[in-house]
Amino acid sequence: MTAATTTNHWVLTLVCADGPGIVHDVSGAVVAARGNITESQQFASTDTGRFFMRLQIESPAERAEFEAALAPVIQRFDMTWTLDVVGRPLRTLVLASTAGHCVNDLLFRHRGGQLPVEIPLVLSNHGTLRDLVDFYDVPFEVLPVTDAASKAEFEKRVLRAVDEHDIELVVLARYMQILSPELCEALAGRCINIHHSFLPGFKGANPYRQAHARGVKLIGATAHFVTSDLDEGPIIEQNVVRVDHSRSPSELVAIGQDEESRTLTQAVKWFAESRVLLDGARTIIFR
Amino acid sequence: MTAATTTNHWVLTLVCADGPGIVHDVSGAVVAARGNITESQQFASTDTGRFFMRLQIESPAERAEFEAALAPVIQRFDMTWTLDVVGRPLRTLVLASTAGHCVNDLLFRHRGGQLPVEIPLVLSNHGTLRDLVDFYDVPFEVLPVTDAASKAEFEKRVLRAVDEHDIELVVLARYMQILSPELCEALAGRCINIHHSFLPGFKGANPYRQAHARGVKLIGATAHFVTSDLDEGPIIEQNVVRVDHSRSPSELVAIGQDEESRTLTQAVKWFAESRVLLDGARTIIFR
Amino acid sequence: MTAATTTNHWVLTLVCADGPGIVHDVSGAVVAARGNITESQQFASTDTGRFFMRLQIESPAERAEFEAALAPVIQRFDMTWTLDVVGRPLRTLVLASTAGHCVNDLLFRHRGGQLPVEIPLVLSNHGTLRDLVDFYDVPFEVLPVTDAASKAEFEKRVLRAVDEHDIELVVLARYMQILSPELCEALAGRCINIHHSFLPGFKGANPYRQAHARGVKLIGATAHFVTSDLDEGPIIEQNVVRVDHSRSPSELVAIGQDEESRTLTQAVKWFAESRVLLDGARTIIFR
Amino acid sequence: MTAATTTNHWVLTLVCADGPGIVHDVSGAVVAARGNITESQQFASTDTGRFFMRLQIESPAERAEFEAALAPVIQRFDMTWTLDVVGRPLRTLVLASTAGHCVNDLLFRHRGGQLPVEIPLVLSNHGTLRDLVDFYDVPFEVLPVTDAASKAEFEKRVLRAVDEHDIELVVLARYMQILSPELCEALAGRCINIHHSFLPGFKGANPYRQAHARGVKLIGATAHFVTSDLDEGPIIEQNVVRVDHSRSPSELVAIGQDEESRTLTQAVKWFAESRVLLDGARTIIFR
Repeated sequence: MTAATTTNHWVLTLVCADGPGIVHDVSGAVVAARGNITESQQFASTDTGRFFMRLQIESPAERAEFEAALAPVIQRFDMTWTLDVVGRPLRTLVLASTAGHCVNDLLFRHRGGQLPVEIPLVLSNHGTLRDLVDFYDVPFEVLPVTDAASKAEFEKRVLRAVDEHDIELVVLARYMQILSPELCEALAGRCINIHHSFLPGFKGANPYRQAHARGVKLIGATAHFVTSDLDEGPIIEQNVVRVDHSRSPSELVAIGQDEESRTLTQAVKWFAESRVLLDGARTIIFR
Repeated sequence: MTAATTTNHWVLTLVCADGPGIVHDVSGAVVAARGNITESQQFASTDTGRFFMRLQIESPAERAEFEAALAPVIQRFDMTWTLDVVGRPLRTLVLASTAGHCVNDLLFRHRGGQLPVEIPLVLSNHGTLRDLVDFYDVPFEVLPVTDAASKAEFEKRVLRAVDEHDIELVVLARYMQILSPELCEALAGRCINIHHSFLPGFKGANPYRQAHARGVKLIGATAHFVTSDLDEGPIIEQNVVRVDHSRSPSELVAIGQDEESRTLTQAVKWFAESRVLLDGARTIIFR
Repeated sequence: MTAATTTNHWVLTLVCADGPGIVHDVSGAVVAARGNITESQQFASTDTGRFFMRLQIESPAERAEFEAALAPVIQRFDMTWTLDVVGRPLRTLVLASTAGHCVNDLLFRHRGGQLPVEIPLVLSNHGTLRDLVDFYDVPFEVLPVTDAASKAEFEKRVLRAVDEHDIELVVLARYMQILSPELCEALAGRCINIHHSFLPGFKGANPYRQAHARGVKLIGATAHFVTSDLDEGPIIEQNVVRVDHSRSPSELVAIGQDEESRTLTQAVKWFAESRVLLDGARTIIFR
Repeated sequence: MTAATTTNHWVLTLVCADGPGIVHDVSGAVVAARGNITESQQFASTDTGRFFMRLQIESPAERAEFEAALAPVIQRFDMTWTLDVVGRPLRTLVLASTAGHCVNDLLFRHRGGQLPVEIPLVLSNHGTLRDLVDFYDVPFEVLPVTDAASKAEFEKRVLRAVDEHDIELVVLARYMQILSPELCEALAGRCINIHHSFLPGFKGANPYRQAHARGVKLIGATAHFVTSDLDEGPIIEQNVVRVDHSRSPSELVAIGQDEESRTLTQAVKWFAESRVLLDGARTIIFR
């Protein structure tokens, strides 16, 4: 028998009401599962009284043994939890429209092995990005959205794709349609949008034009969870870059696109690595 | 005669409607005033059709000769203009309340010769900062503001101080009272405020608490001209710093204060160096 | 006749010994060429006594008329100069090896119209990037470098390509061979390298490993002109990003590649826009 | 009896060879000491095989009870450890010369309650900063250093002050003398210097002049532990700021001083909060 020579590398997240003894009981379960903790982060939220923990653990244990060791602790503290293999690619659906910068960044890094996702489909309401997506050998499908009916069709297709491909994350990579409240609800906590502004600065349409009119000295981008409350979902990551008075709105757009790409890719990477946990309207990011 | 051995270093700003020939005519006037341009910046605003120029010029000419050489050009293009000696300390009135970080930064850099201002008075509605201001040998005066009448008194005192000391710039260094529309109007274009937020992100009161509740990943500060439209005056400078979920509102305050200090001091420095020009609701910053 | 309705947009750079009257004479020539200055930057170097100027000018004049108007000024001040049409794509040769991040960034932005270059050839000592380059419909040629003889062949091919395609800029996009002094000399002032370190921090091989060993808290990239003095050419642009103790050398590599891409692309863009001028061992960047 | 109503807030650091079961045993000891973990960070170094942990713990236990609970674990894993009350001011000796920016920043933040230190003495080889230090009511002592003998005297005074005031940290706040190897040795791991450069960029004297000559686009500062290997001690924190070709060496100095102040203050704050641990030539920073 050689099973004992295999080492699994697990990532475990736990959320429960804060209280004494949690870490001791969890680490006891890890010992019981023959595990060694290689990375550990925790946070007790004074806003909500919740306790958050993320562990990476090396262990020869298979999933069944691991879950059995954890079960009593999870029950005792009434925990919400996830257990995954470190580096397992997250099944990710990308929605796009005409702008290619975010899609290109996601696909390029995915192919380069820097982004632990698999992308069974890019779904778009425009055909613009077909060549780009084809180059990366990712299936690409176009469903025009021109009215309420075609929009409903598009959203049905999203849900069907989520189902067919067992999708764990939907990424709005500059997808330029507002999701219906029903779809937001269906994808709650597993749909990330990139907003082309340093939220809550400039909500709504054409933020770069607003930024120009206001003469701001920094422009930025915000990756956030999608909720039915437009541009108000929990923020995952933000970046800014300095600009000056000489920039036209179209130059601000070009400058801002770099921030959008890297901010969205960063958020997706953290999510795929189980580093993003929700604490009410805020996110805990275990970087 | 030794007059020719003196070299003056002038800073000249010019604003007019954009059109051909301006630079040639201005540089002709500089030649006529026996000047050598050592620094030059210009910008033509496509928003307003205005042309902006800032020059630093070495010349043996005194002011009268310089102005005489400029006069025809100024008249021809109907220019708004300023002419000053480089490095002349700007007469600056500081308004404060209880927080010392911005006042300390201004006074420390002023004394260190890094900030070309002279500060004949710090006026406060609280006595908290007396020791700090005394240490820097700057006159300090307290006028409590507790109601409409005492607020009106305070504002009258501001205007009298502006008059007495020939004040060119009023700095709100975390002065925690909203100025009346009349005072805003009286100080238009020469009153700078520091807002403890990355505007237009969190306007109004307690932005750090708002930032915490929203879980933003960057917090910042904005130095802007004061207008009667609260927190909407033209932005001069902005800075941000990265924060994470573990920061309490009070920690965000402490972190943000550094950004406030350096952002305000930077804005005052640029203004004192004639580097800040107004283009409608935006600023042109000739850094 | 309709010729007068055409407007050319020129970019002019001028370098000469500093002295009085330059701006006036230049702007006089611009007026003579029926031009309107839309962007202007200048700098007088106290290190070398040289004067640098970059102008963007709208004018109905064709090149011949423009040059005729400039000729007397250029002669009077013994100027080095360039005159080009704004936005004309710079003929650029890209050298690459196996790493794709810089090449991808250059090609993606080139195709998106954000980078004013044309790339007639990517020349590599490895075949790794063929698919990537093919996707962007750019010719790709491989010449292995395994010894002194094949290296000499490669360098001859570079010079022949420079000749054939009238190349104005050679970009080392993570090309992992040291150029011979002769090639450095032949490409002086028109060959840009990206160094995967915040120079002068970590020269030579494997800077990310050095950075890890030293426990630095920021890593970065440097775009610089290539000279025969390895890693010592004039710096064009630098960027850094924050890292912490938990990053392995391979993670530092991945993090650093983003900085490399954006730093190199930025340097190429500025160069293509005639914004990079040399002042001895330093660069003047008219951003 | 009211003892049970008191809650102590402890900070515990632990370092030992990495291995399984550490977290479980430590958290068991915390439970035994009636503690609740409020903050926890850990890191296993693949460079040295060492395991590092920092915990903040609320507990009614007094020090004796706490240490008794920890003792078996410390022994079992042969741990190096510290146990302190959160927020206890660290006894800090400041060495200075003529430049006031770092001293001012330390004293201002100390007085504002942002820096958990107590400063029984500022020792300087110049009298320049007397007024500044007096203002903050901190004892100030001058011992000129002009030759080997007076330098030896100064260093003896340092060691005596360390002894007299039970000093835990010596801060070189732009103290412009090189410490002798003996003093470096005596203060190993508890002496922090601010280097006015982005190390390892420009070592030795006049880094801003070097930075200007090299035309770098970012300048910075590095806070590091002092070792007898000049400017090579483990790095604690670094910051940079963007500059351009127009900056003179003296302007670079002024710009750099802000980075020096905030970088040094940050390093001192982390050290005082037991967030800085040594891993060979690198630091672990539990931010």
